[in-house]
Amino acid sequence: MDKINQTIAGIKPLDKKAMEEARIRQDSLTKPRGSFGQLETLSIQVAGIKGNPRPRIIHKVIFTLAGDHGVTKEGVSAYPSEVTPQMVYNFLREGAGINVLARHIGGRVVVADLGVASALEPHPDLKIKKVAMGTRNMARGPAMSREEAIHCIEAGMELVEGELPRGMDILGTGDMGIGNTTPSSAITAAITGADVVRVTGRGTGLDDDGWERKVKMIEKALDINRPDPKDAIDVLSKVGGFEIGGIAGVILAGARYRIPVVIDGFISGAAALIATTLSPEVKPYLIASHQSAEQGHRVLLEYLGLKPLLNLDLRLGEGTGAALGIFLVEASLKILDEMATFAEAGVSEKND
Amino acid sequence: MDKINQTIAGIKPLDKKAMEEARIRQDSLTKPRGSFGQLETLSIQVAGIKGNPRPRIIHKVIFTLAGDHGVTKEGVSAYPSEVTPQMVYNFLREGAGINVLARHIGGRVVVADLGVASALEPHPDLKIKKVAMGTRNMARGPAMSREEAIHCIEAGMELVEGELPRGMDILGTGDMGIGNTTPSSAITAAITGADVVRVTGRGTGLDDDGWERKVKMIEKALDINRPDPKDAIDVLSKVGGFEIGGIAGVILAGARYRIPVVIDGFISGAAALIATTLSPEVKPYLIASHQSAEQGHRVLLEYLGLKPLLNLDLRLGEGTGAALGIFLVEASLKILDEMATFAEAGVSEKND
Repeated sequence: MDKINQTIAGIKPLDKKAMEEARIRQDSLTKPRGSFGQLETLSIQVAGIKGNPRPRIIHKVIFTLAGDHGVTKEGVSAYPSEVTPQMVYNFLREGAGINVLARHIGGRVVVADLGVASALEPHPDLKIKKVAMGTRNMARGPAMSREEAIHCIEAGMELVEGELPRGMDILGTGDMGIGNTTPSSAITAAITGADVVRVTGRGTGLDDDGWERKVKMIEKALDINRPDPKDAIDVLSKVGGFEIGGIAGVILAGARYRIPVVIDGFISGAAALIATTLSPEVKPYLIASHQSAEQGHRVLLEYLGLKPLLNLDLRLGEGTGAALGIFLVEASLKILDEMATFAEAGVSEKND
Repeated sequence: MDKINQTIAGIKPLDKKAMEEARIRQDSLTKPRGSFGQLETLSIQVAGIKGNPRPRIIHKVIFTLAGDHGVTKEGVSAYPSEVTPQMVYNFLREGAGINVLARHIGGRVVVADLGVASALEPHPDLKIKKVAMGTRNMARGPAMSREEAIHCIEAGMELVEGELPRGMDILGTGDMGIGNTTPSSAITAAITGADVVRVTGRGTGLDDDGWERKVKMIEKALDINRPDPKDAIDVLSKVGGFEIGGIAGVILAGARYRIPVVIDGFISGAAALIATTLSPEVKPYLIASHQSAEQGHRVLLEYLGLKPLLNLDLRLGEGTGAALGIFLVEASLKILDEMATFAEAGVSEKND
């Protein structure tokens, strides 16, 4: 817990002066004031995060963290658990959606095993941070111990620190874990206080019966485990997942090192709930890339006070939405840095 | 009118076979079916447009067309008309928002004068297609003659044809013209039948008084001119603009040459209303890049049956939203083309 506490203590507020300078510059650029809408706000936020009124982004890193879930034994997912390691290999061969989109934006993907339920073959690009061979079945007791919860958050922090020497101007979060919308719904219900039915979706494609079973399992897990909503480590240990805890660690370390944190969809959002419950100072560092098709995601984003950049009915995870979001952040910063001002271009300003 | 009729006659339906093959491939890729949401639909649409089940995009072209508006004499804009030519020079010096975003997506911008109210200095990158020195004041009579309306549409078509030899795999539309949300609202009201108050916004930043004056001017222009909603040339000539007609021509020619047409915001949307009224076969070629902050845009997109890709409160024009939309189209096509299939990656398919 020392590492978590030290990281949290290192998270500082955004740089107000850099934000004010960025705001003044936005208003001097050759466009009607505010006409780049949410992209203007975004550029000012990133100026504040980086303490630089005209920041640029070169190194873009997506963290795609994998873990398995004991609760899949209850039939809460449309896919078998074997798919988690198979997809990890797919990431390493660069055949998955996140690989395509990371290439498209000129970013790199860091693939890590936080708790896949099988021994993965070593690979130079695979970070092994395995806490256990999958979580236990949360419908019958805690998904993990309190120590394991701390361990996976710290592992996420170490992943960020390990990448700093290679350069990281922005990071995106991503997940892979068959069954992991179930713990994400449980975390969302536990922390926001929303009803389970409101925050439970169809994951990778459940039918009506499957969805009802999933809702009952989550209600049962919350009932048996009674997580304390004020204690994020308790919530994570009782109804969470290793990759979710790892992503929470990535988020905390991102804020600590003043790196804009672009969160992906529902699973990354649940990790953001864990991270912001541990430290509300994290919030200004967060950028919500998209509104997922998972219905709990809207509840979660409202609770976090985040307005998503995209709404394309994505529900893949892996960091795919985050990659698209990073492209938009980069666009917003290029606008701020590269556009001519009214004075430079000799363009008349507004009639008053 | 011969050129317009020939172009329209050349517009063919989308290629159903290519779309079906693209759909089958999407369902074979290593992701839950449909999990890339709107990006999957988009990739299938582009496959149909191009008649290729795995199309790629290399050459991206944004057409930014400029024109002035006689109605600005009525005080309908927050900026003076001199800004139109000043911004054209800004485009040519690559200092404007569209230049920044075109560079960001690796595309080129074609800047054209369709009817700026001053003689622009020649420049190797400026296409001169000037129909007149700005439109006449539509609050006092027709904005242009029927011949001028035909002329500007044909000029837009010629711009597309002129760029074909350099390569064009996708095109985006864009506009520059102080006062041009006024004719766009008038066109939207005339063609969709919606009330003027519902489709009139604040443009570049009108206050309440300015907005009320603008609504009255548009009502007056429609009342005096009585455009025939079934006759797009009549609507364009009475309450349109040269750059709007030019964009309608770009759209028609795009569809004729089987090029995906990514429309920008409200002004480009009004041009799409003109183009689709001339030929409904254009619709399947259209991709709406974003939902603009201009309130008439929603009405217009619903009328066209288009779901925008982005909703970032943009209201700049120039093709800036289209540029961001082109990035998303390219992402969707890379997903379709580059992702591994379940069979290739050895990933298990869904439990059934």
